[in-house]
Amino acid sequence: MATPSPHSDIYAVIDLGSNSFHMLMVKVVGGSVQVIGRVKRKVRLAAGLNDSLVLSHKAMKRGWECLALFAERLQDIPSQNIRIVGTATLRLARNVSSFLTEAEAILGQKVEVISGEDEARIIYLGVAHTSNSDSSRLVIDIGGASTEVVIGQGFSPKQLASLNMGCVTYLERYFSDQQLSEENFLAAIAAAEQQIQPIVSEFRQAGWQLAVGASGTVQAVQEMLVAQGKDEVITLQKLDDILQQVMACGQLQQLNLVGLAQERKQVFPSGLAILIALFRQLDIQGMTLSGGALREGVLYSMLPQLQDANVRHRTVNSLMIRYFIDQQHAQRVAEMALELAAQLQSRWDLQKFEGLSMLRCSALLHELGLLIEYKNHHHHGAYIISHSDLPGFTRAQQQLLMALVHNHRAEIMPEVLARQTMTSVVLAVRLTRILRLAVILSMRRRHEALPQVTINAKAESLELVLPNGWLEQHPLMRAELEQEIQYQQQAGWQLSIN
Amino acid sequence: MATPSPHSDIYAVIDLGSNSFHMLMVKVVGGSVQVIGRVKRKVRLAAGLNDSLVLSHKAMKRGWECLALFAERLQDIPSQNIRIVGTATLRLARNVSSFLTEAEAILGQKVEVISGEDEARIIYLGVAHTSNSDSSRLVIDIGGASTEVVIGQGFSPKQLASLNMGCVTYLERYFSDQQLSEENFLAAIAAAEQQIQPIVSEFRQAGWQLAVGASGTVQAVQEMLVAQGKDEVITLQKLDDILQQVMACGQLQQLNLVGLAQERKQVFPSGLAILIALFRQLDIQGMTLSGGALREGVLYSMLPQLQDANVRHRTVNSLMIRYFIDQQHAQRVAEMALELAAQLQSRWDLQKFEGLSMLRCSALLHELGLLIEYKNHHHHGAYIISHSDLPGFTRAQQQLLMALVHNHRAEIMPEVLARQTMTSVVLAVRLTRILRLAVILSMRRRHEALPQVTINAKAESLELVLPNGWLEQHPLMRAELEQEIQYQQQAGWQLSIN
Repeated sequence: MATPSPHSDIYAVIDLGSNSFHMLMVKVVGGSVQVIGRVKRKVRLAAGLNDSLVLSHKAMKRGWECLALFAERLQDIPSQNIRIVGTATLRLARNVSSFLTEAEAILGQKVEVISGEDEARIIYLGVAHTSNSDSSRLVIDIGGASTEVVIGQGFSPKQLASLNMGCVTYLERYFSDQQLSEENFLAAIAAAEQQIQPIVSEFRQAGWQLAVGASGTVQAVQEMLVAQGKDEVITLQKLDDILQQVMACGQLQQLNLVGLAQERKQVFPSGLAILIALFRQLDIQGMTLSGGALREGVLYSMLPQLQDANVRHRTVNSLMIRYFIDQQHAQRVAEMALELAAQLQSRWDLQKFEGLSMLRCSALLHELGLLIEYKNHHHHGAYIISHSDLPGFTRAQQQLLMALVHNHRAEIMPEVLARQTMTSVVLAVRLTRILRLAVILSMRRRHEALPQVTINAKAESLELVLPNGWLEQHPLMRAELEQEIQYQQQAGWQLSIN
Repeated sequence: MATPSPHSDIYAVIDLGSNSFHMLMVKVVGGSVQVIGRVKRKVRLAAGLNDSLVLSHKAMKRGWECLALFAERLQDIPSQNIRIVGTATLRLARNVSSFLTEAEAILGQKVEVISGEDEARIIYLGVAHTSNSDSSRLVIDIGGASTEVVIGQGFSPKQLASLNMGCVTYLERYFSDQQLSEENFLAAIAAAEQQIQPIVSEFRQAGWQLAVGASGTVQAVQEMLVAQGKDEVITLQKLDDILQQVMACGQLQQLNLVGLAQERKQVFPSGLAILIALFRQLDIQGMTLSGGALREGVLYSMLPQLQDANVRHRTVNSLMIRYFIDQQHAQRVAEMALELAAQLQSRWDLQKFEGLSMLRCSALLHELGLLIEYKNHHHHGAYIISHSDLPGFTRAQQQLLMALVHNHRAEIMPEVLARQTMTSVVLAVRLTRILRLAVILSMRRRHEALPQVTINAKAESLELVLPNGWLEQHPLMRAELEQEIQYQQQAGWQLSIN
């Protein structure tokens, strides 16, 4: 504790939430955040707050014990790299100062209890730094004791609200009898709708193009959808369906649904009730999951070097650095792929579902797996993509990217394309075929060696036309293209080369 | 073709072998070789050599067609980064100059037809640059038309021989009727033994400590052993067993054995006969597979920056660079692991099967997977290790390393330890337990924060003793160690902490 810390490259964020306390330790590697440690404890602070808003000593003690664990690692990180924020329960507790005095003594650091509006603002930034979008967006975060609702665009929040309802407080209030009854749900949903009501008109008036959820409840819903074979977009209809499944379990102890994680069960019904109320009151049509929220907002505020306006570009650039990708070559393949796509645009609609952006990203990343090994580098690249945290991509986009990289060369695995839920299989196949041809046509890794090509589509049949005599002069490329005709044929796709 | 090449960082080696022509393109990334392209064609040049040692025009034409493919990519690489070597068939062919004139015109590069002794010397260097050993070693490489036999130590070959027998010429000579009969095998083995006879006494006299094989035949045998659940060390007994399996297939067209790759089948019986003859004549007790041979020998001769005497160190250091590993921390964990091992040495024999070296390497590499993602980084690290080319490690050592990294944290997967064939399961488990404790004890990533520990073993029960009062002052470490007791207990291993 006496010596100055050697870890000036490590950053720590602690979030003293109403449901759990969470410490995140990261480094910046190759232009993006690398998590190097996490400690999390379900402190359930909100459960210790009584009706007079006094926090029980018992709940405080649970909190302090957890902070003693955090302190052990915190002492190795310089103060200026640490931020500790407290949210709803600490905001509400009248006796918060008793908690804080001891907490700060344990941590040797200042704790900031942030206002609801600040929390909403920081959550928005956390979402903006981890999601891709220039559209205006509605951001929802259901916490243990508060729910933040924000509308913003780019990195600017515009409309902020923090509501005193959360999955821990609603669990105590509406499900204390442990029954997953219609009656309990009706009461919880009605109460939530009432709490949302005051902000409805100004939020609806402001409007938004995309809705993003950033909390355990939304994550749990999405995991259930994926596990149950549905696409990732959350709708009121899907929520109603999940509500029926939950009620059919009868009691909280019996709650057991495909895709619902053990550790989430306790606060899932109450969170679900709040989410349904939000969908109804704000008339939300569809929602995806954000990769970040409060912790990421706090974290990125300490990392000015990562303030890149285009989050997806930041992620792709960082992957290229971290996996030693030949960036000139990656760029060349991306340009070739987009040129082929442009020629096909009138026949094949490639723009929907961000098809062109996904094509470009997959071209930039197609050699990701070369760092591991050559022979199966398409598999290795797919492995890396499917297991990485990719700010700027939703889970379904990540799956599509993985499927494209997996299929960029060698034998085609159509089942990998069928498994992704981002686009239709038809579009995924079209993007794959363009990417594969771009990779082959760029194989000499030189701009001067790229042939002038014309590509035509008739329905799903492709015809690639090369300059007269070119194939005769380029026997290796010819052999590769002939092999490619075989690969595409085996997958049931017609390709001819002239 | 006119502009100077931009690819001064790419190297190409072409090997005009008697069985196949092979072009390898590599870059140096983070202190080791990264393959970026491979083109291979089964030219079977040796099959065109008649008894008067004249190479047929048809065979030459197959060769030239293949070279035209290579030439297309070769033109983008500067001449000083290219080496093209021809071996036995070109050495033997009387009309080789006809082949070479056209070949060099196609390639725009000089072709070196190397002597048998040079080939043996280069193969030895290829093995030395990709295998770990300070012991003296016997190196065997069965090619299409010649077999090289070398004894050396470190990077110095001492005894060299090149014999005119190979898997393509022996296929033509002894299996032309396509029968996998005892008669054919007896004739092939006897002929090989006769060709080996002249070198037997000088080689046996020189002696060696380890035998390493470096060719498709040895690789195929090893793949079959692994696929059939045996350990990787090739013995005469295992070869005899495989011979029985091969003969049971009856005919070359019917040859179909577990673990034998399709593309290897044709020349496998003839190569097997030669290998058996070598085992018998030289009285080889056990042989492992080398990661490299002629191509690698040629390649490393162009890369003076990679002439590190300890190949295993070079590989581990390069992995640490390429995966952005925190090297100070890796070193700290390795030191802690070796210190625990030293304390246990009198009870647990950790030195056999290179146990301490494997422990050290696994500690240096345990955070390999962090580059992909934190939560399952032990899985990602295992994935990377199991799919990488690791010069300096045999396949079984690579498996053990993978199993250790996989099990360095979180839940223990004993089946992964049981699946490796490098050591006994008991030793693998001991190494795992030491590594896990070293990782936990080093978790603060600071040298000053390492506790003074004593560790004792009674049979397989471990007792870790920390200084008085230390655990009370370090609640996070205590929580981690208590969790570790649980993990080890679930795996059936007793651990106590005092």
